[in-house]
Amino acid sequence: MTMDQNELKRIAAVRAADFVEDGMIVGLGTGSTVTYLVEAIAKRVQAEGLHITGVATSKRTGKQAKALGIPMKGIDEVPHVDLTIDGADEVDKNFQGIKGGGAAHAFEKIVATSSTKNIWIVDESKMVDTLGQFPLPLEVIPYGSTKVFDRLNNEGLKPVFRLDDNGDRVKTHSDNYVIDLHVGKIDHPHLLANWLISQVGLLEHGLFLDIVNTVVVGTQEGVKVLEAKRA
Amino acid sequence: MTMDQNELKRIAAVRAADFVEDGMIVGLGTGSTVTYLVEAIAKRVQAEGLHITGVATSKRTGKQAKALGIPMKGIDEVPHVDLTIDGADEVDKNFQGIKGGGAAHAFEKIVATSSTKNIWIVDESKMVDTLGQFPLPLEVIPYGSTKVFDRLNNEGLKPVFRLDDNGDRVKTHSDNYVIDLHVGKIDHPHLLANWLISQVGLLEHGLFLDIVNTVVVGTQEGVKVLEAKRA
Repeated sequence: MTMDQNELKRIAAVRAADFVEDGMIVGLGTGSTVTYLVEAIAKRVQAEGLHITGVATSKRTGKQAKALGIPMKGIDEVPHVDLTIDGADEVDKNFQGIKGGGAAHAFEKIVATSSTKNIWIVDESKMVDTLGQFPLPLEVIPYGSTKVFDRLNNEGLKPVFRLDDNGDRVKTHSDNYVIDLHVGKIDHPHLLANWLISQVGLLEHGLFLDIVNTVVVGTQEGVKVLEAKRA
Repeated sequence: MTMDQNELKRIAAVRAADFVEDGMIVGLGTGSTVTYLVEAIAKRVQAEGLHITGVATSKRTGKQAKALGIPMKGIDEVPHVDLTIDGADEVDKNFQGIKGGGAAHAFEKIVATSSTKNIWIVDESKMVDTLGQFPLPLEVIPYGSTKVFDRLNNEGLKPVFRLDDNGDRVKTHSDNYVIDLHVGKIDHPHLLANWLISQVGLLEHGLFLDIVNTVVVGTQEGVKVLEAKRA
């Protein structure tokens, strides 16, 4: 019996919830796969009396977690994060990833880089050899964003302002814009990241490099827990 | 007769206004010295019928310029900027600078990097051998700002959240916080800038490197126009 994509996400999320231990401060990502994760963690909190503190990377995750009875705190109210579990839009063979399909990548990266350990949960369609099939999201401040756009365009990075269903520019939690780069194959993710982060007016890009060592993948053969072997 | 600091600022600003040419799109910085500049440019617009378009880096500059009859546009409404004139908090012997005492350094850097030419106007007290007497301002987004603060502190950079007269954290035009670094002598400004800009949650730092080739200085011996000789 073939599992659909949602089922693959769900089994990965349920498996990843097992990494949560009593007493942990747990970063919770954003997105459809994380929705299953929050459910699974909430079940463990209820069933096992697990004492954890959740830290959300977006309002929607925070709302869901709170509704399901997970005690939540803000990132600035905790001294550190023990473990963050999040989805990813693409993960390459070196465990480098692209995130930001949900426009929450700045907050997600802040929590991820404040976290002792990071785990990504994905369905197998997200695993790629080389990044770049998925557009690379950037968060840029509105003031001067046309100039950032022009520079990205001049560099051949094929930028597109992300629009909502009404044709208005998508705004992040920080009231910034999202520009998606349709770069194609990203052969040198660190070089691209270095160039992007130095662009004035850009808050954060969606390349998540050297952050994750464990990826939990939902596949038709069941859940696979992959561990990075970093050079 | 000794000139006071305001008079030194004023004579530098008046001299710098001469660099504005008919038809130019002119970036206008922020701060007390720029106030004199805007007055001087407005006088030329009136007296010589100069046709220029101003681009402000802050609300207060925009308001002043408009009130004095300079036609203004937003940075995203102009294709480029021909010349930007701004103040600086410190300028070293290599024409590298620190800006951000007025908490407008992100917008100022956006306009500066969109500008064909940049000129700084300062009184002679701002000219130093090595940067770092003046605290180095950073703009950080509120979410996760305590984590950024901790990292800066761990790196020995002596961060302090900037507070207003009521003891509340200063907010920028983008609703972000300002952290001032009390680093002391900045022997390696490019190394510091590279490390800072890669910090997640930091929008912009106040190091303005390799941006300006002309500095107009008000001194007791009169105005000096210094031109950088870059290696």
